[in-house]
Amino acid sequence: MNLIILDPSEVTGAGDVTLTDARAAHLADVLKVTPGQTVHVGLLDGPRGTAVVTLTDRRRVALRCAFDGDAPQRPRVDLLLALPRPKVMRRLWAQLAALGVGQIILTNAERVERNYFDTHVLTPDCYRPLLVEGLQQARDTRLPAVSIHRQFRVLIEDHLDTLCEGLRLVADPRVKTPISHALRNSRAERILIAIGPEGGWNDFELRLLEARGFQPVGMGPRTLRADTACVALLTLVHEAVRSGGAPVAE
Amino acid sequence: MNLIILDPSEVTGAGDVTLTDARAAHLADVLKVTPGQTVHVGLLDGPRGTAVVTLTDRRRVALRCAFDGDAPQRPRVDLLLALPRPKVMRRLWAQLAALGVGQIILTNAERVERNYFDTHVLTPDCYRPLLVEGLQQARDTRLPAVSIHRQFRVLIEDHLDTLCEGLRLVADPRVKTPISHALRNSRAERILIAIGPEGGWNDFELRLLEARGFQPVGMGPRTLRADTACVALLTLVHEAVRSGGAPVAE
Repeated sequence: MNLIILDPSEVTGAGDVTLTDARAAHLADVLKVTPGQTVHVGLLDGPRGTAVVTLTDRRRVALRCAFDGDAPQRPRVDLLLALPRPKVMRRLWAQLAALGVGQIILTNAERVERNYFDTHVLTPDCYRPLLVEGLQQARDTRLPAVSIHRQFRVLIEDHLDTLCEGLRLVADPRVKTPISHALRNSRAERILIAIGPEGGWNDFELRLLEARGFQPVGMGPRTLRADTACVALLTLVHEAVRSGGAPVAE
Repeated sequence: MNLIILDPSEVTGAGDVTLTDARAAHLADVLKVTPGQTVHVGLLDGPRGTAVVTLTDRRRVALRCAFDGDAPQRPRVDLLLALPRPKVMRRLWAQLAALGVGQIILTNAERVERNYFDTHVLTPDCYRPLLVEGLQQARDTRLPAVSIHRQFRVLIEDHLDTLCEGLRLVADPRVKTPISHALRNSRAERILIAIGPEGGWNDFELRLLEARGFQPVGMGPRTLRADTACVALLTLVHEAVRSGGAPVAE
């Protein structure tokens, strides 16, 4: 936890907050804070700042915060992901937020099992704390927007243009074009990367994506597990954004 | 499991093998193979090929193999990693093998807890099956070499030159040089990337690495969990090797 994230509703006008949950436990047991010490804090979807510890007792830590830092930019990368197995999806939430995504769009596909959509892992009660955990790791405050779509075609044809704009990429293991090449000469402000299910998109899905402007990109001949592939592809998009092609934001 | 890996000792001269372990269960329950079907196989540290299923019954699957494919090149990337928490290390083994590393060199550092070295996760009985799992995922057969070093300074000063050669990089969050820039104009056949503990290398460790030729490289301002950082950094090194800088092997 490199940044303690606070919800605006928790903090008084004077900047005071008393924590009693996992954040208090982390401050007390891991960081072993004592009154007078300073810690890094951030307001969810708002600015970062610092807080002085005003009180610690057993499971309670009180802070007086000053949110005088910058508000992080929303990450310029969005993710369209064919829903992986619930166990994998649970592991991914925090990693996606840590890597930095503006939006997570989860979709069905032929090779996604229907019952994956019934899992607890897709409820905000489950994923919101995991996303916040990832933000706290990466010192970000921008909570990714999440939407869940059970009909691939309806999503791509009717909703995607409203959901997000920018350059569109689709990971395709048969393709050699590196992500950095696809971004070269692009002036796009935002990049959306589509990642298919373990068995890949079917032909219809790939054709529909390409008809809607998704450029196929590859990352070498090795087949990776869904969660490893997500981390790898998001890393490559961020690096391409950071080091060339599109203008650098950070 | 995209490739069934077989140990040379399991296969008869005629190419016959009878599986009764997790591989048999995977073939029977997940791939649902029947006699006459063909599956992809690989000989550990050797060539790939195909096998015809000759028999299936409950927990036994017999194959007749022909290893007439190519033997994969050893991945050109090596990893020097400050030992993470055992739970994280357990999760990493398969991912490292899937991403592709020639060698995994685990080391102590000031910010590594000593008792991490006493874990079961560092015994070949534990990590070898996990490495093979990663190879089977990525269709590779080259088992990464593993060595474990409890003394950082002795490793770097006395053993590293013998263990591996090539270009040396060290991930440093304070540095902006992208990995692809560090590899530009390099003719190195192999790349070694050093990744520190969660709290970072201390100053002495960083100075020692730099004195031994490690060039600092960065991957942006976000602080990632150790396992996410490993996947991200190895991905970037592979991509840099693949798409420029050093000559491409695959």
